[in-house]
Amino acid sequence: MWGGRFAEGPSAIMREINASIPFDKALWQQDIRASKAHVAMLGAQGIVSAQDAATIANGLDMVAGEYAANGVPENWDLEDIHMTTESRLAELIGPVAGRLHTARSRNDQVATDFRLWVRDAMDQALAGLNALQVALVTRAGEHVHSIMPGFTHLQTAQPVTLGHHLMAYYEMAARDVSRFADARARANVSPLGSAALAGTGFPIDRFATAASLDFAAPTRNSLDSVSDRDFALDYLMAAAQCALHLSRLAEEFIIWASQPFGFVRLPDALSTGSSIMPQKKNPDAAELVRGHAGRIIGSLTSLMITMKGLPLAYSKDMQDDKPPVFEAAGLLTLCIAAMTGMVESTTFRTDRMRQAAELGYATATDLADWLVRQANIPFREAHHITGAAVKLAESKGVALDQLSLDELQAIDARITEAVYPALSVEASVASRASYGGTAPSQVEQRVAEARAALGLE
Amino acid sequence: MWGGRFAEGPSAIMREINASIPFDKALWQQDIRASKAHVAMLGAQGIVSAQDAATIANGLDMVAGEYAANGVPENWDLEDIHMTTESRLAELIGPVAGRLHTARSRNDQVATDFRLWVRDAMDQALAGLNALQVALVTRAGEHVHSIMPGFTHLQTAQPVTLGHHLMAYYEMAARDVSRFADARARANVSPLGSAALAGTGFPIDRFATAASLDFAAPTRNSLDSVSDRDFALDYLMAAAQCALHLSRLAEEFIIWASQPFGFVRLPDALSTGSSIMPQKKNPDAAELVRGHAGRIIGSLTSLMITMKGLPLAYSKDMQDDKPPVFEAAGLLTLCIAAMTGMVESTTFRTDRMRQAAELGYATATDLADWLVRQANIPFREAHHITGAAVKLAESKGVALDQLSLDELQAIDARITEAVYPALSVEASVASRASYGGTAPSQVEQRVAEARAALGLE
Amino acid sequence: MWGGRFAEGPSAIMREINASIPFDKALWQQDIRASKAHVAMLGAQGIVSAQDAATIANGLDMVAGEYAANGVPENWDLEDIHMTTESRLAELIGPVAGRLHTARSRNDQVATDFRLWVRDAMDQALAGLNALQVALVTRAGEHVHSIMPGFTHLQTAQPVTLGHHLMAYYEMAARDVSRFADARARANVSPLGSAALAGTGFPIDRFATAASLDFAAPTRNSLDSVSDRDFALDYLMAAAQCALHLSRLAEEFIIWASQPFGFVRLPDALSTGSSIMPQKKNPDAAELVRGHAGRIIGSLTSLMITMKGLPLAYSKDMQDDKPPVFEAAGLLTLCIAAMTGMVESTTFRTDRMRQAAELGYATATDLADWLVRQANIPFREAHHITGAAVKLAESKGVALDQLSLDELQAIDARITEAVYPALSVEASVASRASYGGTAPSQVEQRVAEARAALGLE
Amino acid sequence: MWGGRFAEGPSAIMREINASIPFDKALWQQDIRASKAHVAMLGAQGIVSAQDAATIANGLDMVAGEYAANGVPENWDLEDIHMTTESRLAELIGPVAGRLHTARSRNDQVATDFRLWVRDAMDQALAGLNALQVALVTRAGEHVHSIMPGFTHLQTAQPVTLGHHLMAYYEMAARDVSRFADARARANVSPLGSAALAGTGFPIDRFATAASLDFAAPTRNSLDSVSDRDFALDYLMAAAQCALHLSRLAEEFIIWASQPFGFVRLPDALSTGSSIMPQKKNPDAAELVRGHAGRIIGSLTSLMITMKGLPLAYSKDMQDDKPPVFEAAGLLTLCIAAMTGMVESTTFRTDRMRQAAELGYATATDLADWLVRQANIPFREAHHITGAAVKLAESKGVALDQLSLDELQAIDARITEAVYPALSVEASVASRASYGGTAPSQVEQRVAEARAALGLE
Repeated sequence: MWGGRFAEGPSAIMREINASIPFDKALWQQDIRASKAHVAMLGAQGIVSAQDAATIANGLDMVAGEYAANGVPENWDLEDIHMTTESRLAELIGPVAGRLHTARSRNDQVATDFRLWVRDAMDQALAGLNALQVALVTRAGEHVHSIMPGFTHLQTAQPVTLGHHLMAYYEMAARDVSRFADARARANVSPLGSAALAGTGFPIDRFATAASLDFAAPTRNSLDSVSDRDFALDYLMAAAQCALHLSRLAEEFIIWASQPFGFVRLPDALSTGSSIMPQKKNPDAAELVRGHAGRIIGSLTSLMITMKGLPLAYSKDMQDDKPPVFEAAGLLTLCIAAMTGMVESTTFRTDRMRQAAELGYATATDLADWLVRQANIPFREAHHITGAAVKLAESKGVALDQLSLDELQAIDARITEAVYPALSVEASVASRASYGGTAPSQVEQRVAEARAALGLE
Repeated sequence: MWGGRFAEGPSAIMREINASIPFDKALWQQDIRASKAHVAMLGAQGIVSAQDAATIANGLDMVAGEYAANGVPENWDLEDIHMTTESRLAELIGPVAGRLHTARSRNDQVATDFRLWVRDAMDQALAGLNALQVALVTRAGEHVHSIMPGFTHLQTAQPVTLGHHLMAYYEMAARDVSRFADARARANVSPLGSAALAGTGFPIDRFATAASLDFAAPTRNSLDSVSDRDFALDYLMAAAQCALHLSRLAEEFIIWASQPFGFVRLPDALSTGSSIMPQKKNPDAAELVRGHAGRIIGSLTSLMITMKGLPLAYSKDMQDDKPPVFEAAGLLTLCIAAMTGMVESTTFRTDRMRQAAELGYATATDLADWLVRQANIPFREAHHITGAAVKLAESKGVALDQLSLDELQAIDARITEAVYPALSVEASVASRASYGGTAPSQVEQRVAEARAALGLE
Repeated sequence: MWGGRFAEGPSAIMREINASIPFDKALWQQDIRASKAHVAMLGAQGIVSAQDAATIANGLDMVAGEYAANGVPENWDLEDIHMTTESRLAELIGPVAGRLHTARSRNDQVATDFRLWVRDAMDQALAGLNALQVALVTRAGEHVHSIMPGFTHLQTAQPVTLGHHLMAYYEMAARDVSRFADARARANVSPLGSAALAGTGFPIDRFATAASLDFAAPTRNSLDSVSDRDFALDYLMAAAQCALHLSRLAEEFIIWASQPFGFVRLPDALSTGSSIMPQKKNPDAAELVRGHAGRIIGSLTSLMITMKGLPLAYSKDMQDDKPPVFEAAGLLTLCIAAMTGMVESTTFRTDRMRQAAELGYATATDLADWLVRQANIPFREAHHITGAAVKLAESKGVALDQLSLDELQAIDARITEAVYPALSVEASVASRASYGGTAPSQVEQRVAEARAALGLE
Repeated sequence: MWGGRFAEGPSAIMREINASIPFDKALWQQDIRASKAHVAMLGAQGIVSAQDAATIANGLDMVAGEYAANGVPENWDLEDIHMTTESRLAELIGPVAGRLHTARSRNDQVATDFRLWVRDAMDQALAGLNALQVALVTRAGEHVHSIMPGFTHLQTAQPVTLGHHLMAYYEMAARDVSRFADARARANVSPLGSAALAGTGFPIDRFATAASLDFAAPTRNSLDSVSDRDFALDYLMAAAQCALHLSRLAEEFIIWASQPFGFVRLPDALSTGSSIMPQKKNPDAAELVRGHAGRIIGSLTSLMITMKGLPLAYSKDMQDDKPPVFEAAGLLTLCIAAMTGMVESTTFRTDRMRQAAELGYATATDLADWLVRQANIPFREAHHITGAAVKLAESKGVALDQLSLDELQAIDARITEAVYPALSVEASVASRASYGGTAPSQVEQRVAEARAALGLE
C-alpha cells in the first residue's frame, strides 16, 4: 500500500508535495493581468525594447485565450501557474519570453497575483452582502408589526417584532460590509517590483504598475512585501465573522422550522427530502451554512498557524496560504447566497409566532415596569412582585392578564385595573420605543434609514 | 475524588460553573462608569428624581472607592460584578439603589461594560505599537548601511541592510495600528439602553449616555446590541495578527542568537540562565512571545467557536466571551513590550552579519542581472550562466568574485572585467534602489517618512 | 498609559513575562512528590549520603506542610514552583538542599511534575465519566418505554424511546472513557532522570523513581523526554471530544426546555432567573457547558500551535503548555458534573414528548416498510407511495392513521386494513428491534449490559 | 458579478451547496463494498430473494467496474455517491435495484462508508509511520557515535549524539503508531443496519454485515451510530499530533540546512532552486511539511467546530465531515513520505556538527558534575564555580579545556589536573550513560531494541 505510490522514491514525493498548479491555476487571470502590467512598464522604462514588450503582451493574450477556451493545463512538472504560463509563452513566442521575468521574481509575482485574487473575493463578498441586506430590509419592512416571542437563553423573554429581529441581522451584515471594506483598503497596495526580497537594480516604475492594477500605491518595503499575507488573513477574518452571523441566522431557521416551533415554512428549493422518511422536509441549506462556518473558521485557523513564527522573507510554507482562502471564499459565497435566498423566500408563519409570544409570560417585565412607573416602586421590588404573579398564574395554568384584579392585589395592593392594557403583546411591543427598540415606530424608522443607505429609494 | 467536591449536589456545581465574578471583576471601573452615566441620564430625564440620582451616583463613588482601596470582594453567590456592585450599593444607600436598574438589564449592562473594557484594550495596544514602531525606526536608522544576508527559505538569498529588515517590521506594525483603529471605530457605539433585548418603555436618552461614555452613537438595534460580540472578536483578530508579526520577529531573534548564527547579543534583562548549564544565555522572552502567539490564536478560536450558531438574543454561553479576551489582552501587552525592549536593547553583531552575507553566493543574482543589462541576455539564460559560475566556485571553495576572468569567460564569453565591481555586497545592496528596495538611499527615505509619521521630528 | 507599567524597562517586562509561578504553583504536590522520589533514589544509589537524603526528604515534607497550611507563596523573582520550593528548602535545611538538584534539571523535573498532574486530571475525568454513565443508564432504565420524536435535521423523523436516546450518550461517554484510558496508558512513563536533555553521568536508577511514582517504566530517550508534551495534547484531545459530546446533550436540553418544545423541566438548582424578566427560568448550566466546549477546543488549539515547529529539546515556549491544560481541566470537570446533575435531576415531560411524536407523520417510514414487507414492493416505490399519503394527510390536516382505507387505496390498491396497527407510535417503536434499535426490548438489553459493565448489579 | 452565477435563484444555490458528489465520490469503493455486504445479508435473511440479491450484487460489480475504468461521473443532481451509484444500478438492472435500500438509510450507509475510508486512512498512516521508523532507526544506527551540539532554547547546551537525536523522533513516531492503533480499535465497529436513526423492523443480521466488512462488532445504539463522527475526529487528532512531530523535524532540517549551521546537505530530489537566485537550494519539502501541519490542525479544528452543539441524530452539517478528513489524509501521507525520504537521503555533515559541539562551552555541565562527584560540592555551588570558569574562557576567547590549571584553581582550589579528560565532547557524551541517555552505549541498546520491535532482524 505504502510502497507503490512513491516507488520512484523522493522525486515522486517531491513532485506531488511541491506542485501547487492543482490549486493555484485559479490565479490565471490575475497572473496574466499582472504580467501584462509588468511588461508594459518594462517597455515604457526601456528595460526591454518596445517591440519585445509588444511581443510578450501579445503572447500573454494568446495564452489567456487558450486558458479561457480550454482551461489551464495541469502539468505537475511545471509546478505552478507562473511556470505553466511562462513555459507556454516561450513555446508561443520563443526566447524573448525570458525577458518577462526581468526585474521580478516568483516571490513578488505570487504576492501580486494572490492579492488581486483576494481583492476580487472581497468585492464578491461585498456584493453578496448587499443582496443579503436588501433581502433583510425588505422582509423586515413587511413584518414591522408581526409579533413573535423574543428569546434569551432560548426561553421566551419579551415580545418583539419580526421586523426588529430581521433588522438585527441587517446590523450584523452592515458590520461585515465595514470589515470587508477596511480589509480591502488595507490590502490595496502593490507588491510588484519587490523582486525576490530586496528590490531590484533595474529602473522600474512601481507606481506605474500599481496604477495599472488599480492599486492605491506600491508597498513600501520589499522584504515585507514578499513575506506578508495579512491581506489573506484580513479576508479570512472578515469571512469568519460573516459566517458566524450567518450561522446564527441558520440556527434560528433550523429551530423555527422544527415541528414544535413551526414558525417558518422553508422554501422548497432550499430544503430536501429523506431517502427513507417520506414526510421529511429538511432545512439542508441552513444546516450547511451552519456547518460551513466551522470550515471557514478552520481555514482561518490553518493560515494563522502556517504563518506563525516564519522568519523573513518568503518561506515555502506560505504556499499553504491559498487552499484555505480558496476554500473559504467558495464556501462564503454559497453561504451568503443561501441565506439571502432563505430570507427572501421563507414563509413566516406569523400566526404561530404570535401564539407563542402570548404563551410564556412574555409580558411579565411589562407588569414590573408598570409598577415602577405607576406606583413608583424600585425596580428590584417590582421584579419580586411580578415573580409572585407569574408563579400564581403558572400554578393556575393561565396567562398573566387572566389573573383577576383581586388576585393581583392580593400580591400587591398597589396594582390597579389600569395594569391590564399594559399586559397585551401589542402594548408591550409598542411601548418599547426607546431608540433602537422593538416598537413598530422605531423599526419603521430603522428600515427607512437602511433602505436609504442601500439606495433603495 | 469525584464525590467530595460536589457533595452538596447540583447547587454546588451551579455555584461554581455560574459565577463569573472571579474574572469579570476586572470590569469594575467600566461598570461603575456606565452606571453613573445611566443614573445621570435617568435623573436628567426625570425617570428617577434628581435626589435619588445624586444619592445613587454618590453611592457608586463610595463603592468605587472601596474597590480601589481593597479590591473587589469575590462572593460567588453574587455571581458577577454587576450584582456585587448593586448589592454593596444597597448596603450603603438602602432601597433607593434598586432604582439604578430601571430601564436597563444585565444584558445591556454587560455589553456596555465589556465594550468599554475592550476599547481600552485597543487603546493600550495602539500605545504599545507606537512604542514598538519608535524602537524599530530608531534602530533601523542606525543600521541603514549595515549589511546582512537576506534569507528566503532560511537560505542565504541576497544581501540586504539590517535597517531594511527592521523596517519590514515597522510596516507590519503599521498595519496592526490600522487594524486596531478600524476595530475601535466599529466598536465605538453604545448598547446601553437596549435593556434585556427589546428596548424599554421608559423615556431614556440613549444619545446622552452614549456621549457621556465617549461613544460615537448609540447602537441601532436592541436585539443585536445584547447579542453582538463582534467588537471582542475584532479585538482578538487584530491581536492575533499582531501576535503573528511578533512571533516572526521573535523567531528571528532566537535563530540569530544561536551560536552558529551569532548575529545578536540579546539584552541580559530579557534572557535567562540555566539551572544546570552554567554557560547558557537563553532567549526566554523571545520564546515566550512566540509561544504566546499560540495562546492568543487559541483565544480567538475559542470565542469564534462559542459564538457560532447562537440564536438571538443573549445566551449564557456568551459569558465565555471574557476569559479569552482578558487572557489575550494580558499576553499581547507583554508581547509588545517584550519585543520593544528586545529591539531597543539588542546588540547587533554587524561584523558577523556581514561575514555571513559574503558567504553563500548572495550576489549571484547580481551576476545574472549584470548579464541581462550589459550583455542583453534574456534573464532565464543569464540565470543558467550564473548557475554554472556558482557551481564552479563551490567546487573550488571560493567566492564568486574570486573566480578568474578566464574561468568566467570559459563559462560565457560575454563576461568582462567590468563584472567584478557588481559582485561586492555593498554594490549589490546599493544597486537595489527601486522604490521600497534595500538600498541605503531607499531605506533612508523610508525611515525619514516613518519618523515624520510618528511625529519624531 | 504604556510607560507606567514597564517604567523600569526590560527587567520589569521580563519579570512579568517570565514568571510561571502564578499558574505552575498548581503543581506543588507533584513537585514535592517527584523530589522525594528523586532524593530517595539518590540516597539508595549512594549519590548523596543517606543522611543528606533524609534531611532533604524531611525538609520537603516541611515545605509541603507549609504549602498545605498557607498556600504557595507567589514571589515572581523565584520564577516557578521549582525554584520556590528549592529556595524555601534551602532556608529550612541549609546548603545541603543544593544536593537535591544532583542528576536532574528543571527540564526533566517539570516534565515529570506536569505528567503527574495530567495523569491525575485523566483519573478525575474517568471518575466523572463514570458518574455520568451511571446517571445516564439509570434514567434510561426508567424511560425504556417513554416515546418521543426522534429527530434528524431537527425535523420529526421517527418515534424513538427516551431510554434509547439517553443510551446514545452512554455510548459517547463509553468512548470518552476508552480515550482517556488510552491516553493515560501512553502518558504513564517517567521522564525523571533525563536531566537537561542528554541524561546524566551519575549512576541513577530511573526504574526506581518510575516505580515510586507509579509510572509503568522510564522513558527511553532523554531528548524526547524533555521535549515531549504529547501527554498534555492527548489529554486535551480526549477532553475536547468529551466536551463536544456534552455540548450536544446541552444543546438538546436547551431546545427541549424552550416553551415550544417543553420536553423537560430543568432542575432549579441548575437554572437561573433573570434580573429583569421575572418569569424566566434559564438553562444556564447547559448553556455554559455548550460555551465551555468552545474554550476547551480553544485550549487544545492553543497548545497545538505552541508546539508546532519547535526544534529539540526544551524551548521556553513550552511554558505555555500549562495554562491551557489547567483551564481545560477545570472547565471539563465542571461540564461533566453539570451534565451529570442535569441528567439525574431533570423532569422529563413524557406526555409532551409523546404528543410531539404523534405529530409530524413520524410513522411514515412504517407505512413504507409495511408496503415492502406485505406487498413486496421495492423500497424506493414504497417511499413514493407513502409520500403521496403524507401529502394527502397534510392537506387534510390529519394524522396518517386518520386517513380512511378508501383514501389509502386510492393512492395504492395494495394497502389493506392490516396497515393501521403499524402506524401507531408504539407499534413503530416496538418494531425496530434490530440489534441496537430503539425497540424497548433492545434498549432493555443494552441497559442491562451497561449496568453490568458499570458494576451496578 | 453576484447576480450571474445564481440567476436561476435558490435552486441554483441549492444545487451547488448541497452536492457532495465532488468530494464524496472518493468513497466509491467503500460504498460498493458496504452495499454488497448489505445485499448479501438481505439475501441470506430472506428479506430479498436470493435471485434479487444476486442480481443486485452483480449490478454493483458492474458499476464498480465502470467507476474503475472511467471514474465516477459527477452529476450534481444526483447529489452524492450513494444516489449516483443507486441511479446507475437502476439503469443497469432495473427496478430490482430499489430493493437494495431495504432496511437501510443514507444515514447508516454514509456512516459505514466513511468509517471504512477512515479505517483505511489509519492503516495507511500506520504503514507510512513504519517506513519512517525504519528510516530513523537505520540512520540512527549509522550515527551512534556522531557528536553534535544538543540544543535547548536553540542555544548550545550539551553534546549529544546524532543517533540519539534521531531516536527521539523514533519515540514520537512510536507514540503516533500507538495513537493510530487505539483510534483504529475504537473505530472498528459497524453502524450498518442502524437505518435512519432508530434501527429497522426488518430481520437483519448486523453481526453478519459487520463480519463481512471486517468490523469487530456492530455498534450498540442506532441513534449514536448515525450521529457519531468520533472516528473521524480520532483520526484527525492522531494526524495532528503526527504532523506536529514532523513539523519539528522539518524545522530542524530547515535550520540545519541554513548556511550558518551547515549541518546537512539535503537530498536534491527534495529541494528546489530559485527562479531568480541561481545559487539557491531550498528545503521546500521540509517547509511544506511544516506548513501542512497548519492545515492538518485547521482540518481538525474545522470538524470539531462543525460537530459542536449538534442535536441528535443526523444533521446535514455533518456533510462537512469529509472535506477536512480527505484533505488532512492527503497531506499527512505526503508529509510522512517526505520526511521519510529526507531522513533516508540527507547527508549529515558530521564534521560541521562536531565542530559546533566544541564551541559554545557545551561541556560546562561536565565540569560542574565533576566538581560534585570529585570534590563533593553541592550542585548549586558547582554551578556557580563553573559559571566563573566559562566567563573567564569567554573573555579570553578560548574553550574551557584551554584554560590552564592555574587559572582554574584560581577560581576554585579543588580543581585538579584530572578534570581535563572530563571536558572533551567524547567524554561528555560517553559519560551520560543513564537509561535513555545520549551515551553511545545507551543509544546502541535503544537502536537494537527498536530494530527488534520493527522486525528488522
